[in-house]
Amino acid sequence: MIKLHTVPTPNGHKISIALEELGEEYEVIPYDISIGDQFKPELLALNPNNKLPVMVDESPVDGGEPVVIFETGAILVYLAEKHGKLISSDLRQRFRQMQWLMFQVASVGPLQGQAHHYVRYSKVKQDYAQERYLNETRRQCQVMESQLSQHDYLAGDDYSIADIACWPWMRALPLIDVHLQKDYPATFAWFERVAARPAVERGKDVINGWVYKLPPNFYMELDEKTWSYSFGEEQYKQRQRT
Amino acid sequence: MIKLHTVPTPNGHKISIALEELGEEYEVIPYDISIGDQFKPELLALNPNNKLPVMVDESPVDGGEPVVIFETGAILVYLAEKHGKLISSDLRQRFRQMQWLMFQVASVGPLQGQAHHYVRYSKVKQDYAQERYLNETRRQCQVMESQLSQHDYLAGDDYSIADIACWPWMRALPLIDVHLQKDYPATFAWFERVAARPAVERGKDVINGWVYKLPPNFYMELDEKTWSYSFGEEQYKQRQRT
Repeated sequence: MIKLHTVPTPNGHKISIALEELGEEYEVIPYDISIGDQFKPELLALNPNNKLPVMVDESPVDGGEPVVIFETGAILVYLAEKHGKLISSDLRQRFRQMQWLMFQVASVGPLQGQAHHYVRYSKVKQDYAQERYLNETRRQCQVMESQLSQHDYLAGDDYSIADIACWPWMRALPLIDVHLQKDYPATFAWFERVAARPAVERGKDVINGWVYKLPPNFYMELDEKTWSYSFGEEQYKQRQRT
Repeated sequence: MIKLHTVPTPNGHKISIALEELGEEYEVIPYDISIGDQFKPELLALNPNNKLPVMVDESPVDGGEPVVIFETGAILVYLAEKHGKLISSDLRQRFRQMQWLMFQVASVGPLQGQAHHYVRYSKVKQDYAQERYLNETRRQCQVMESQLSQHDYLAGDDYSIADIACWPWMRALPLIDVHLQKDYPATFAWFERVAARPAVERGKDVINGWVYKLPPNFYMELDEKTWSYSFGEEQYKQRQRT
C-alpha cells in the first residue's frame, strides 16, 4: 500500500495519475493548504520543505522499511523504476525521458506557477511580472509544440513519466487564458491523446478538480489567513519554528 | 570525450564540477548569451528549449552513438549513473539524493533565479516581486539549514549530485545580499566543506567567475539588444522561427 499525502493541484495529480497507470493500491491523505495543513508536524517530519505531495511506499520491492519521498520528480522516477514501466531501460531513451521530465520540473511547474500567481492571486496587478510569466508560459508551449509536431509523446514514440509530469500543468492553462487548441495544435492533439487514457481519467481529479472549471483569469479572492498561509507572513514564520 | 556546451552560470558550473569530480575528460564549448548564441541552429538541434548547458557524451559506456542530454538535473543523474559515483546504489539513499536534487531543480534554481532577475536585471523596481522571491530564497535557505544542522550533506552522510546541484546557487547568494555565514551557519559550514574539494575548485569557474565578485545588489545595466535576447522580445521571436 502507498500513502499519498496530497492536494488537488497539478503536482498532486502527477502522482495520482502515475499510481493509476501502474496499478498501485494507494490511500489518499488529503491536505487543505488554505488552513495551513502543510505546516503540520507530521508532514514536516516527512518533508522539511512542507510541500505536497509526499509519498510513503509501505510495500517497497525489497520488502524493507517504508520508502518516503518528497518532490514529484523524484517520486515519478521512483515509481517508474519500481515497476520498470513509464521509463525506458534503453540508455538513450531513458535520458530523453529524464530530460523532458526535468524540463517540467525546472521550468513548466515553477514558472507557469508564477503566471498563475500573478493572474489569479496577486492582490495588486503586477503588469511586468504577469507579462514576463505569460510570455515564458507561451515560450514553453512553443518548445513543446516543436517537439510534439515530430513525435507522439514528449520523449519520442512512448508515453512516459515526462508526459505524466507535463499533462496536469497543460490542463491548467485555460485558467491563465492560454489555449492549446487554438494556438498549439500538436500539443493539443497530445493533450487529448493522454486525456483519453483510463488511468488519467481516474487520477486527474484526486482529490477533486473544481478549480479547472473556473473561467479564464478568474481572480481567487483569498481571506487574509489563507493568503498568509499560502503567500504571506505565516509561511515564513512557520518555517523558522521548525 | 565529453563536449560541454555551456555558460558561466550556476547551472553551467553544476556540470563542470560534476565532470571534475568524476575525472571525465571534457571540452568546453562556450556560449555568449548576451549576443544570442543560445539561438544558434546547432544548439537548437541539441536542445529545442535553447537553454545551456547541454552535454554530448562521445564516449558512452556502451560504446555506441553519442548521448546528448539537456537539463542539468538529467545530466547529473546520467553522469552519476555512468560512473556509479555521487549517487547511491542503496534504494532509500538513492531517492533521498534524488529528492534533494529535485528540490534544487524545482525550487532553488527557478525561484532564486527570479530573485536575481528582480534584484539585478529588472529595469523598473518591482517591490512586490523582489520581496516575494527574496522571501522564498530565505525560506529555501532555512529548509537547507534544518537539514544541514543534522547531516553533513543534503541527503545524509555522503556528498552527492544533490550537493553539486545546490552549491553553485548558494555561491551566488551574496549577489542578492543573502549571506550564509551570517544567517545560516550549518549551511555555511556545508558550503565551505564542498568548496574545499579540489574538483569544486577546478570546476567552479568554468568559463570564468567574474560575476561572483560583484557587490551585493549590483544592478546589471544591459544594452537593449542583450536585454532583448535575455528577457525581451528577441527570445520569443526566435522561438517562433524554429
